Amino acid sequence: MSSTTLPPSGEQKAIRWYPPSYDIRVETIPIPKIQHPDDAIVKVTFAALCGSDLHIYRGHGGVNKDHTCGHEFIGEVAALGHSYGGDNTGRPSLYSSLKIGDKVVSPFTVNCGECHACRLGYTGRCPEGFLFGSPALEGGQAQYVRVPKAGGTLFNLSDPSTWSSNLSSEGKEKALATLSDSSLLMLADILPTGVFAALQAINHPKVAPIITGKPWPLCFSQNAPSSNQVGLTDEDRILTVAVIGLGPVGICATVSMLDLLSTRQIPYKFVAVDPLESRREKVTAVYKTIDAAGKGNGEFAACSTDEAKDKVKEWTGDVGCTAVLEVVGNTSALTLAYDLVRAFGVIVSVGVHGEPPLPLTGRQVYNKNVSFDFGRCPARAMFPPAFDLLVKRQDVFGGIGQPASLVDQVVDFSQAAEIYRAFDKGEVGKVIFDPWQAQA
Amino acid sequence: MSSTTLPPSGEQKAIRWYPPSYDIRVETIPIPKIQHPDDAIVKVTFAALCGSDLHIYRGHGGVNKDHTCGHEFIGEVAALGHSYGGDNTGRPSLYSSLKIGDKVVSPFTVNCGECHACRLGYTGRCPEGFLFGSPALEGGQAQYVRVPKAGGTLFNLSDPSTWSSNLSSEGKEKALATLSDSSLLMLADILPTGVFAALQAINHPKVAPIITGKPWPLCFSQNAPSSNQVGLTDEDRILTVAVIGLGPVGICATVSMLDLLSTRQIPYKFVAVDPLESRREKVTAVYKTIDAAGKGNGEFAACSTDEAKDKVKEWTGDVGCTAVLEVVGNTSALTLAYDLVRAFGVIVSVGVHGEPPLPLTGRQVYNKNVSFDFGRCPARAMFPPAFDLLVKRQDVFGGIGQPASLVDQVVDFSQAAEIYRAFDKGEVGKVIFDPWQAQA
Repeated sequence: MSSTTLPPSGEQKAIRWYPPSYDIRVETIPIPKIQHPDDAIVKVTFAALCGSDLHIYRGHGGVNKDHTCGHEFIGEVAALGHSYGGDNTGRPSLYSSLKIGDKVVSPFTVNCGECHACRLGYTGRCPEGFLFGSPALEGGQAQYVRVPKAGGTLFNLSDPSTWSSNLSSEGKEKALATLSDSSLLMLADILPTGVFAALQAINHPKVAPIITGKPWPLCFSQNAPSSNQVGLTDEDRILTVAVIGLGPVGICATVSMLDLLSTRQIPYKFVAVDPLESRREKVTAVYKTIDAAGKGNGEFAACSTDEAKDKVKEWTGDVGCTAVLEVVGNTSALTLAYDLVRAFGVIVSVGVHGEPPLPLTGRQVYNKNVSFDFGRCPARAMFPPAFDLLVKRQDVFGGIGQPASLVDQVVDFSQAAEIYRAFDKGEVGKVIFDPWQAQA
Repeated sequence: MSSTTLPPSGEQKAIRWYPPSYDIRVETIPIPKIQHPDDAIVKVTFAALCGSDLHIYRGHGGVNKDHTCGHEFIGEVAALGHSYGGDNTGRPSLYSSLKIGDKVVSPFTVNCGECHACRLGYTGRCPEGFLFGSPALEGGQAQYVRVPKAGGTLFNLSDPSTWSSNLSSEGKEKALATLSDSSLLMLADILPTGVFAALQAINHPKVAPIITGKPWPLCFSQNAPSSNQVGLTDEDRILTVAVIGLGPVGICATVSMLDLLSTRQIPYKFVAVDPLESRREKVTAVYKTIDAAGKGNGEFAACSTDEAKDKVKEWTGDVGCTAVLEVVGNTSALTLAYDLVRAFGVIVSVGVHGEPPLPLTGRQVYNKNVSFDFGRCPARAMFPPAFDLLVKRQDVFGGIGQPASLVDQVVDFSQAAEIYRAFDKGEVGKVIFDPWQAQA
């Protein structure tokens, strides 16, 4: 009803995957159409390649239907279904306010924004949720993409009044005027996922004694410690953190955690772990950028897997890390997380795990009093704090191809198959596709 | 130095276990002696039989050394090592104040009270900790027991100034004047363990949206929800809880959780699960006692394992329970917990788990965004809130052998072998041994 231009029609270019594995083709396919009144069609400005795209790429998970790839995209609204612009009282405000031409970024999954799960902020498990770039829903590595439940799903960058923030209205508008699309695209998945990992850790009850300075369970009450309790030392209040996996999400988790530690002035020791030297160099450059003046309230080390155990031993003796962020999603990463975590520590796992059983016995987890937080980021719910962090850390998220920048390069679709191959091998970092760039 | 009476010497009666399994004998053995300046000898008033005693009883865990059983005991100080009564500045206050004749209860493990783990309140994983009633440390089902690191370990019921409480000094003293020893004995393990389970659940970040009424992650910030967020309904804010396993610890976890829900006026639906009808009757009687006026802020059902899934389905549709307390400690209980928990729910497992691998795949825990808290209660740290709950719920913890009372019976040592057998078969509930009662 509010459509002020004709919906797009005709054909478009898209990056598509074919079963069984490793088969990426750039094809010309029809531009998607509105199928439901809640749909939007988004004209894609940029789409990114994500580590979790590799699950399907490699043929894991039993997918056997070809489809358009990709779940990270930013663009502008090109068409809207009939739900938009009328009386939508009680629905998410975008059903009333979203307009053709608005700049939007989408989380990697659809969420209705209206059900019990969405109302609680658990948008990543909305029963109406589908993953973009899967057999259930065509992805965003295309010139156009259909977004179901767009009023609940999309994040409207053209209307800063529609989201909560630590920034003022002026702060948000000023930031939006300078943020690049390649930077804003990080909101689609990896930055909210990193923030999700860090927020779960810092808010976990097992971490509370270190942050509050009061022992368990007094950390949850107003009561003063008793005369029989020995007070925490400064050393006790150092939060030891490990991040396992320094791909793009691992970098985001590291930046988010360091930001929380710095903002709250929590003393820390931080070990960032990855077998790839190139990734350790990246995280080191990122850390140096963040701690530019060398005045940080903690210590930082980038380590290989073997080095990590020695470093944690050096820093904590036989204790281990209070919080371990596992950003890989396989059993060896989980096993390492268990080895590094302290008794009464927490492992936050945001990696996408597959069929293998959890690699731990009941006795192991009992004996170490381990806590775990597993699962997918509720990306739509995490957009506001992720946006604030994006603005704050443009030294990491703003550039392209610099030592401390998260994004390595922007390429056209013709390089899709080669980029998938190189990304799968760890030869490139975060890559963005420009669907409109002249094909090489 | 502060000893005012001669330390006890000579012989005593003790309940002892012999390998490989099911072999319980009452024997006459020497009264233990002070071995270290930090030791105390406690004259045992009552000792209880605990579900976790059954692990060794059944021959699980590869124990092959006979020893005195039991890790739950209350008594009075009969002898103290040389550490006590001098200048103990900087140590737990009991090293200065503990006296011969003081009434004390011990947690089921030793903890020094002075190390990093103890300072954080993680007393259950003190590196100097040993489990009473194990090959490493003689147990409390005896007339006398040696308590290492007693100044860090013991809870001094004769000196209420040594612990933090929601009660005033007068409130504590008034309570102590009326509490029976059989009731106070519940502090040794099962009541703090139940409180630990409940506190972990209620303070978990996954539960925060329901309690605060603000969606994730706004529940951690001061920011107001945005215009694109649909507010939580009253229905959304009902906390659904399952407790799996209604032995004594399960009853304590239920009472503690219900108390938190009632105190904070959190609407709830609560399913208590056990295959044994006698245990379901017990928990139902307990619930009726607690909700005597029928004015509770929730609904309660005691269910068999099969009924539990139907009840949760009836109450939550396809959602599931937000918090599941697993108080059994085997793979089938963990599997049921997974089946009952919602996406973005938390499973708090205080059951003692053994060698079997965790019965879940990485995909299962990722797909449901499950959180887990595993492990042993830091009982010493949990004494203060457990004491407060004990005082508040004397209708459950005060009686013996009543429908709603936790303790079934008090017996003499001569019945030890038969009581172990009956307890192992689920034929009796919580049993207390009186080491001084005339042998039948």
